[in-house]
Amino acid sequence: MKHIRVIGLDADDTLWHNETIFEKVHERYRALLSEYHDAATVDQTLLATEMRNLELYGYGVKGFTLSAIETAIELTRGKISAEEIRTLIELGRDMLNHPVDLLEGVAETIARLATSHVLLLITKGDLRDQQRKLTKSGLAPHFSGVEIVSEKDSATYAEILRRRNVAPAEFLMAGNSLKSDILPVLEIGGAALHVPYELSWMLDRTDQIPAAPGRFFQLGSLRELPALLERV
Amino acid sequence: MKHIRVIGLDADDTLWHNETIFEKVHERYRALLSEYHDAATVDQTLLATEMRNLELYGYGVKGFTLSAIETAIELTRGKISAEEIRTLIELGRDMLNHPVDLLEGVAETIARLATSHVLLLITKGDLRDQQRKLTKSGLAPHFSGVEIVSEKDSATYAEILRRRNVAPAEFLMAGNSLKSDILPVLEIGGAALHVPYELSWMLDRTDQIPAAPGRFFQLGSLRELPALLERV
Repeated sequence: MKHIRVIGLDADDTLWHNETIFEKVHERYRALLSEYHDAATVDQTLLATEMRNLELYGYGVKGFTLSAIETAIELTRGKISAEEIRTLIELGRDMLNHPVDLLEGVAETIARLATSHVLLLITKGDLRDQQRKLTKSGLAPHFSGVEIVSEKDSATYAEILRRRNVAPAEFLMAGNSLKSDILPVLEIGGAALHVPYELSWMLDRTDQIPAAPGRFFQLGSLRELPALLERV
Repeated sequence: MKHIRVIGLDADDTLWHNETIFEKVHERYRALLSEYHDAATVDQTLLATEMRNLELYGYGVKGFTLSAIETAIELTRGKISAEEIRTLIELGRDMLNHPVDLLEGVAETIARLATSHVLLLITKGDLRDQQRKLTKSGLAPHFSGVEIVSEKDSATYAEILRRRNVAPAEFLMAGNSLKSDILPVLEIGGAALHVPYELSWMLDRTDQIPAAPGRFFQLGSLRELPALLERV
């Protein structure tokens, strides 16, 4: 794909582990509420709260923490103690303080891609949290630009490309979410590489399978991207 | 100042009221905790929590809400009820849902400036919250660019100008905070207009008075900016 000049990369669960951290927090959350409700009820109610708050809070750890506190109060009918709520605040802080654990092969692959392509980090979430993770990751010097956005839809991608004078035909986006990284980019005429992660967040899931021959690819690891760029 | 081509504008308390909303929330917060502590203790402890959490949470309503919950648990030694914590979550939501109330003269001034200059909105806070306020404000069409950043220091301004091919000598930043809008811009060689707001947040205050003849200005209202640009 010699026409690809600029590569956009998602961050959470594409460059570094994220959903595994949330999964651990969910486990502790279920345990905290286990005397009141079974795990499925806890999960469903938390997800419903997150969906209800998404428009207002946006993505990220702080909004998640607020939704978790709200859900815990609701599920315990106000019986949860202040001490337990403090535990939830601590859980949120632990997530923000968590070390950045790169996916296998990411460090070498990004370093290699940066010698041949312009790399953009395109991610949603809390502004400061995502910047901190990028800094901790050691990958920052390889990126020409960082876009932390509140929603990854086709309008957002179109605006990023317009502002940076990148034609959609020169652009490939790589990420683990069909909904956020793949479909909107295919929609505006770019190419997209899906690298599925072992887990995916309910709100990032979609059943839609892209039909875009020559523009949609799926690989087991980001490590295979340099070869794909050479090959097609 | 015919050499000014690009004007950066702060958002909260420069274009629309913000600190007045926080002040109302602080009043309700003090009332909620009044049976435990006097107002000064509540204010000081909350501010200390906010400062402690700033590096991790960054600026914005969600971090404020989490700090307010944490402080309330601390100040009541865990006696605060889940119902009262729910009230704090509601307070945070009310802030996010609050209508945008433009400062006097802002609508006309921004519309007028947009005909002669490139306007950039440069603000810190929660990503989605600031975007929502800009949309609600009706001012969005006048801005060529929006920069929601996690810290307004000289490195951030230098990076924004570099990325947009703007020389510091062509740039004027207008805002209500000496610390965030004025000093870092003067430091990198830009011009800055201070428009003080009636209230200012403790963490945005500084005692430093800028010494930058011909580059630092102070006006009572943004409405006087077009005349300033013509005059100097």
